[in-house]
Amino acid sequence: MDKLDNNEQIEGVIVQPLKQIVDERGTVLHMLRKDSPLFMGFGEIYFSEVKFDVVKAWKRHKKMTQHFAVPYGKILLVIYDSREGSKTFGKINKYLLGRPDNYNLLRIPPQVYYGFKSLNDTVSLIANCADIPHSPDETEKIDINNNIIPYQWN
Amino acid sequence: MDKLDNNEQIEGVIVQPLKQIVDERGTVLHMLRKDSPLFMGFGEIYFSEVKFDVVKAWKRHKKMTQHFAVPYGKILLVIYDSREGSKTFGKINKYLLGRPDNYNLLRIPPQVYYGFKSLNDTVSLIANCADIPHSPDETEKIDINNNIIPYQWN
Repeated sequence: MDKLDNNEQIEGVIVQPLKQIVDERGTVLHMLRKDSPLFMGFGEIYFSEVKFDVVKAWKRHKKMTQHFAVPYGKILLVIYDSREGSKTFGKINKYLLGRPDNYNLLRIPPQVYYGFKSLNDTVSLIANCADIPHSPDETEKIDINNNIIPYQWN
Repeated sequence: MDKLDNNEQIEGVIVQPLKQIVDERGTVLHMLRKDSPLFMGFGEIYFSEVKFDVVKAWKRHKKMTQHFAVPYGKILLVIYDSREGSKTFGKINKYLLGRPDNYNLLRIPPQVYYGFKSLNDTVSLIANCADIPHSPDETEKIDINNNIIPYQWN
């Protein structure tokens, strides 16, 4: 089970299981193809390494739609819907991402906050395939402790 | 030094160092943006895990141009130019790919053979951002031992 809360799924978030072609020499791991119904255009692919027990939070993008997959390690991803017009405004979602049981593509829509923590005993690696290239102009960060997001990282 | 042979670089192969934004919580690793001069269009992004000491070889694509990066582990990549019209026909190139010293984007043009081996003591992960989606129709495989490619994997 990859969703760890009982809240409604935040509007615009999509979770799709990804194919893992198991091979004794090493598994081939799908992520995103341009003929996928989830593909929204290519802006950038990059990786975020997260060391064990480290939290990277909170961030949101004004315009970028992100697609996350975790090809190595295990991540707890927390999303907060900060869009006042959204049906799920104020809701928190928590997801596990990692292989083999939670090797999913997870879409994070723009204008929602997200943060993540590595649960692996070494490091985890998040791949992000975003529809626009990263730009500091459309990225907003707030402190891990704040008065906006009703979530405490342990 | 990431190129391990003294041969001329095979026509169409490009190696470009990638940015690593070091952070004590975990490094951010660039791979490819659509505004990069190396970007040729997006077909698919997927990962190939390679277990320690395993060789995956040989393969070539009729049409696909691949861009490899190794965000985890360390890979020996061997390329053989099998294009009779190429200036570097018959040449072998060998590259190391991995962090932190050889975190590069490596372009493999179509119609050349390639194979790789994991040098890490656990596993390695190759990310491939290709200009067309994978299709078995345009993929050719030959046995690791063959009469075409003058290279022996140890």
